[in-house]
Amino acid sequence: MTTQTATQTPTSVSFLGLGAMGYPMAGHLVKAFDSVMVWNRKFDKANQHESEFGSKAVDFETAVSADVIFSCVPTSAQTAELIERAKPYLKKGSVWVDCTSGVPESAIAAANTLQELGSHFIDAPVSGQTIGAINGTLTVMVGGDKSALDFAYPAIDCFAGRIEHVGASGGGFAVKAINNTLFAVNSWALGEGLSVLKAHGVNPSAALACINHSSGQSFASSATFPDRIVNRSFPKTFTLDLMAKDCGIATDLQQQAKLPAPVMAAVASFMRAASNQVEAGSADFSEFIKFLENWSQVIISDEMTTPKN
Amino acid sequence: MTTQTATQTPTSVSFLGLGAMGYPMAGHLVKAFDSVMVWNRKFDKANQHESEFGSKAVDFETAVSADVIFSCVPTSAQTAELIERAKPYLKKGSVWVDCTSGVPESAIAAANTLQELGSHFIDAPVSGQTIGAINGTLTVMVGGDKSALDFAYPAIDCFAGRIEHVGASGGGFAVKAINNTLFAVNSWALGEGLSVLKAHGVNPSAALACINHSSGQSFASSATFPDRIVNRSFPKTFTLDLMAKDCGIATDLQQQAKLPAPVMAAVASFMRAASNQVEAGSADFSEFIKFLENWSQVIISDEMTTPKN
Amino acid sequence: MTTQTATQTPTSVSFLGLGAMGYPMAGHLVKAFDSVMVWNRKFDKANQHESEFGSKAVDFETAVSADVIFSCVPTSAQTAELIERAKPYLKKGSVWVDCTSGVPESAIAAANTLQELGSHFIDAPVSGQTIGAINGTLTVMVGGDKSALDFAYPAIDCFAGRIEHVGASGGGFAVKAINNTLFAVNSWALGEGLSVLKAHGVNPSAALACINHSSGQSFASSATFPDRIVNRSFPKTFTLDLMAKDCGIATDLQQQAKLPAPVMAAVASFMRAASNQVEAGSADFSEFIKFLENWSQVIISDEMTTPKN
Amino acid sequence: MTTQTATQTPTSVSFLGLGAMGYPMAGHLVKAFDSVMVWNRKFDKANQHESEFGSKAVDFETAVSADVIFSCVPTSAQTAELIERAKPYLKKGSVWVDCTSGVPESAIAAANTLQELGSHFIDAPVSGQTIGAINGTLTVMVGGDKSALDFAYPAIDCFAGRIEHVGASGGGFAVKAINNTLFAVNSWALGEGLSVLKAHGVNPSAALACINHSSGQSFASSATFPDRIVNRSFPKTFTLDLMAKDCGIATDLQQQAKLPAPVMAAVASFMRAASNQVEAGSADFSEFIKFLENWSQVIISDEMTTPKN
Repeated sequence: MTTQTATQTPTSVSFLGLGAMGYPMAGHLVKAFDSVMVWNRKFDKANQHESEFGSKAVDFETAVSADVIFSCVPTSAQTAELIERAKPYLKKGSVWVDCTSGVPESAIAAANTLQELGSHFIDAPVSGQTIGAINGTLTVMVGGDKSALDFAYPAIDCFAGRIEHVGASGGGFAVKAINNTLFAVNSWALGEGLSVLKAHGVNPSAALACINHSSGQSFASSATFPDRIVNRSFPKTFTLDLMAKDCGIATDLQQQAKLPAPVMAAVASFMRAASNQVEAGSADFSEFIKFLENWSQVIISDEMTTPKN
Repeated sequence: MTTQTATQTPTSVSFLGLGAMGYPMAGHLVKAFDSVMVWNRKFDKANQHESEFGSKAVDFETAVSADVIFSCVPTSAQTAELIERAKPYLKKGSVWVDCTSGVPESAIAAANTLQELGSHFIDAPVSGQTIGAINGTLTVMVGGDKSALDFAYPAIDCFAGRIEHVGASGGGFAVKAINNTLFAVNSWALGEGLSVLKAHGVNPSAALACINHSSGQSFASSATFPDRIVNRSFPKTFTLDLMAKDCGIATDLQQQAKLPAPVMAAVASFMRAASNQVEAGSADFSEFIKFLENWSQVIISDEMTTPKN
Repeated sequence: MTTQTATQTPTSVSFLGLGAMGYPMAGHLVKAFDSVMVWNRKFDKANQHESEFGSKAVDFETAVSADVIFSCVPTSAQTAELIERAKPYLKKGSVWVDCTSGVPESAIAAANTLQELGSHFIDAPVSGQTIGAINGTLTVMVGGDKSALDFAYPAIDCFAGRIEHVGASGGGFAVKAINNTLFAVNSWALGEGLSVLKAHGVNPSAALACINHSSGQSFASSATFPDRIVNRSFPKTFTLDLMAKDCGIATDLQQQAKLPAPVMAAVASFMRAASNQVEAGSADFSEFIKFLENWSQVIISDEMTTPKN
Repeated sequence: MTTQTATQTPTSVSFLGLGAMGYPMAGHLVKAFDSVMVWNRKFDKANQHESEFGSKAVDFETAVSADVIFSCVPTSAQTAELIERAKPYLKKGSVWVDCTSGVPESAIAAANTLQELGSHFIDAPVSGQTIGAINGTLTVMVGGDKSALDFAYPAIDCFAGRIEHVGASGGGFAVKAINNTLFAVNSWALGEGLSVLKAHGVNPSAALACINHSSGQSFASSATFPDRIVNRSFPKTFTLDLMAKDCGIATDLQQQAKLPAPVMAAVASFMRAASNQVEAGSADFSEFIKFLENWSQVIISDEMTTPKN
C-alpha cells in the first residue's frame, strides 16, 4: 500500500483505456499537466499515444499511483476489475474519474471501495462523440463528491466543453443512461412519424426540413436522420448493442425507483428486439431503423423503394 | 359567380381569421402588396388591424374575391364553412392558402371543390408560435399543387422564414400533425426520464444542462421544459386540448396507411387522458406534466417537493 | 320495388354467402323453416348446399325477397354491395341479418338505408369458430332495433347457443371487434410471458398448466397456445390479416370516442406489423407468435430450439 | 446444529405464517400427518389454529426442526429472515417449502443456503385465492429439486388441487409473477375495451356476456369484472400494491433475460401508477379500474353515470 498522499492540486494524471474516445481525451491532458501517464491493455496504443502527444506510456502500477486517474472502458464490470487490481497502488487523496458509460449501482460500490482506501471515485461519463473528444468539447456529467470533482476539475477541463455536477455517486451514469434512452425514444418516434408521412406521399427530407424548424425538432431529427439514415450511410460509431444496454440501465433505474415510465420501457424493448435481429455487435445504433422498416415495409429514404426484407 | 380572373402575379391579397397567429401574419402582407384586405368574424379585429397596419377591413364577399386568400381558423370544419360561403365570389385562378392546423382529408376535399370552380387550394400550416408570427419567421409546410404555391409564394413569403413544399394536398397538414405528435412524444419521454432522475437525486435543471448538450436534446428539452415546466410557469399559448387533437390526427393517418406506430399511439392516448383530467380547454399543452406527476408522485421542479394531488 | 310485406313471423329465410362459417350456419335453418333459400357468388356452393341440407339454391333476386335475409361475407364493403343490388327486391318488413365481422359505421349506414325502404338491418356477428357453426352453438352479438331482432330471432336461434342484444346499430360489430382485440392482447402478452419464462428455464407447457388454473387464464392460454402454438401446428382457420383488420376497427372506435387505450393500440400495431411480415393473407392468426419470436429469439415450444429466422 | 436426519418419508410437518392463506392451508395438513406444528409471529393465531384444527402450536425452534417446513409470508425478505433464524435448528434432509409469492433470485439464494446445511428449499407459490385454500384445491407451482418435491409431495398434496413442477429453483416464483402480470394485462385491456364499448352505447354486462363465450374470454372477464368491478363491490382480497410488486418482479425477469416485453412493461407501469394514486396499501387489485376511469371519464358499471373524480 502506497503511503504517498495527493497534494491539494493534482500534479500527476493518468489515463487508462485508450479507445476511440479515451485516446483523444488523454491527448488533451498534456495541455495542462507536465506528467501525463497513459496505460492500455494492448500496450502498443500507449506507446503510440506517447509518440503522438508527448504523454508517457507507463505500467499499470505506476499509472494508478497518479493524483488523478481517468478510466474509459466499455463496461462498469471492466472498471471494477481495474479498481480491484489498482487497490495496492493508489495514492491517498487521489481521485479516480470514470468516463465509462456505466451502471449507477457500480459507481456507488466503487465510491465506497475507494473511500475505504482514502481515495475518491467520481462517475463522469461524457457525451459529444468522437468529434467532441478530438476537439476537447465534451459534455461531462459528474456524480459523486463535490470536493473530489473540484480536485480533478483542472484535468477534466482539458477535454470538456461543459462539466456538470449532477448529484451523488451514480448520478452521472444515471443522466447518461437516461439521455441515451431519450435519444432512442426520439429516434424511434421519428421513424414512426416519417413512415406515416412517406406512406402519405411526403418524402423524409422534406418532412425533416419542416420538423427541424418546429417543435418536433430533436438531435435525432437534425443530426441522426439526415446524416445517417435518410442517406443510408449508417456510419459505425456507436453500436446498437450498447444503445440497448443503456436503455436497459434506464429500465433498471425506473424499477429501483418504482416509477412508471411506459414509453421509455416500450422503446427499450424495441431496441432490445432490434439488436437481437440485426448484427447488433457491429451495427451502428442508427440501423434500428431497419427493424422498424421491417414492421412497416416503408423505407426511410427519399427514394420510393420497397424494402429488401 | 365572378368572371374575373387572377393575373399571373397576385396583386390583391386577403386574410380571413385574425387570431393570435393570423393577426400578426396578415400585418406582414402590407410589406409587399398595396391591396391587403382583412376580414374577421368579430369585425372589430379587422378595423383594429386596418388602424395598426394600414390594411383594409372589408366584407366577406370582397375579401374572398382577392387573388390570394389566406385563412387561419381553429379547425378544418371552420375552413370548410368559409369556403362554402365564398364559392360564389371566388375569382378564377385565385389561390386559397389555408394556414389552419387542419385535417389532411379536408384539404383533399377543399382542393377538389376549388378546382371545380377554377381556383386552387393549398394547405399551408405554420410553426414558430406567436413570436414567429410577429417576427415573420414562420416555417410554412405546404401541401398541394406546386404552381398554385408558386403563385402565392410572394404573399406567403411575407411572414415566412422558410417555405417547404412537402407534397400533394393534405401533405402540409400531415407534416404539422406528425410534428406536433413528435413534440408530444419527446416531451412525454423527457417527463418520464426526469422523474426517474429526480427519484435518484438528480435535479431536473442539472439533467437538462447535460441533455441539451447531448444526443437526447430536443425542442422539448431546450425550450419547453426549462421555459414552462421546471419553473412551473405554464404560460397559456397552445392548449392541451389542441395537442390531443393533433395526436388524434396522427393516429388517423396511421390507421389510413395501415401502419404500426405504437409509441405515437401510446402518447396520443396519454395526451387524450391528460386532457380529460386537467382543464384541457384552457390548460397549456405543457400542463400534461401534471398528469404524469400524478402517476409518479414526482414533481418536475428543482425543489424537493411532494405533489399536491 | 316489391310490394310484398313480411308477415308477423318469418316464413321464408335466405342465406347469402356460403363460406366456412355461412355454409354450416345456413344448414341449421332447415330445422325450423320449410322455405330456406341459399345463394352464393360461386353458385356451385349453393347447389351443394341444397343437396346436403335440403335447402333451395335460388337466384339473387329471389333470395333477397325472403322475410329474413342472412349475409355472411368477408367485409362490410361486400355487404354494402349486396344491399345495393338487393334494394329493388326487398320485401317490406323484412329483416336483414348481417353475420359478417363488419364495421360499426357501415352497420349504421345500412340500417338507415334499409329503414328508408321499409326493411330492417341488424348487425349480428358471431363467435365460436367453424366448430360452433357446425354444432349450432355460436354466440351472436346483435346491434340494432330490438323488434327487428325479435322478428328474426327464431331464425338466428337455429345456429346460436346464445343470442345477446348489445345495443343500437353497430353495437354487435363493435363488441366483435373489441372481443377480437382482447383476444389479440391476451395472446400477445402470453407470448411475452412464456418467452420470459422459457428464458428462465420453464417450458411453456408447464407454465400453461399453472396459468390455466390461475388468474392469468384466458381463451388464449387454455385453447390457442396449447392447440396451435406450442405444438407448432398453426391450423389455418382465421387469418392474421383479418385479426389485424379487427384490431384496426377497435382503434377506429377508440378514435371516434376520443378515448385513451394504449394497450389495445400497441397490440393493434404489433398485429399490423406481424401481418406485414408473415404471409398474412394465408397465415393463421396464431402465427403472430413468429413475429414475436423474431424479436426475442425464443421459440414458444417445449423443445430447447433456436429460431430459424 | 441439530444432528437429526429426516426419514425417507416425512413424519413431522410445520407451518410458519398463518395469514389469510396460510391458516387454512395448514389446517389441511392434519388430514395426512399426526404431527402438525404451527407457528406464527403473533402467537395467538397459532393457539387458535391448534384449537380449530388439532394442530400443535410450538415455538420457532421446534417448528423448524420438522421434516417438512412450510412458510407463507408477504415477501421473500421475510422468508430470508426466517431461514436465517432457523439455520441452527434445521434437521438434515428436511425440505423447506416456501409458499410466499416471492422473488426468483431469492429462491436461488435460499436453495444454496439450505443445501450447504444439508437441507433443501423449494419455491412453491400457490394460486386459487382464499377459497382455494379453504377447499384445499390450490394450484401449486414448484421450482427446485425434483427429489425434494417428491419428499414434500404428500404434505403439499393436502391443500393442492394440482401440483406442477415447473423447473429449477426460482421457477415457481417466476411462473407466479408472470401469471399475475398476465392477469394484470388481461384486466387492463378489458377495462380499455369496455370503456370504448360503453362510449358507443354498449353496457359492460352485455359485452361481457358475449366476450365470455368468445375468444376474448379470460379469468378477468369471467370472474374479476362481473364479481368485483361492474357491480362496484371491490372486495379486499389481494391488494393493488402487491399486484404492482408482482408486475415489477416480471419486469426484473425480463431485464435479466434481456428480452423485449413491451405490453407487460406498459401494464406494469400503469399498475405502479395506479397504486401510487389510489390507497394502494388497502385497495383491492380490482380498484386499478378507478385509475383507468380517471383517464377515460367512463365508469365501468351498467349505469350511465359520470365519474366522481
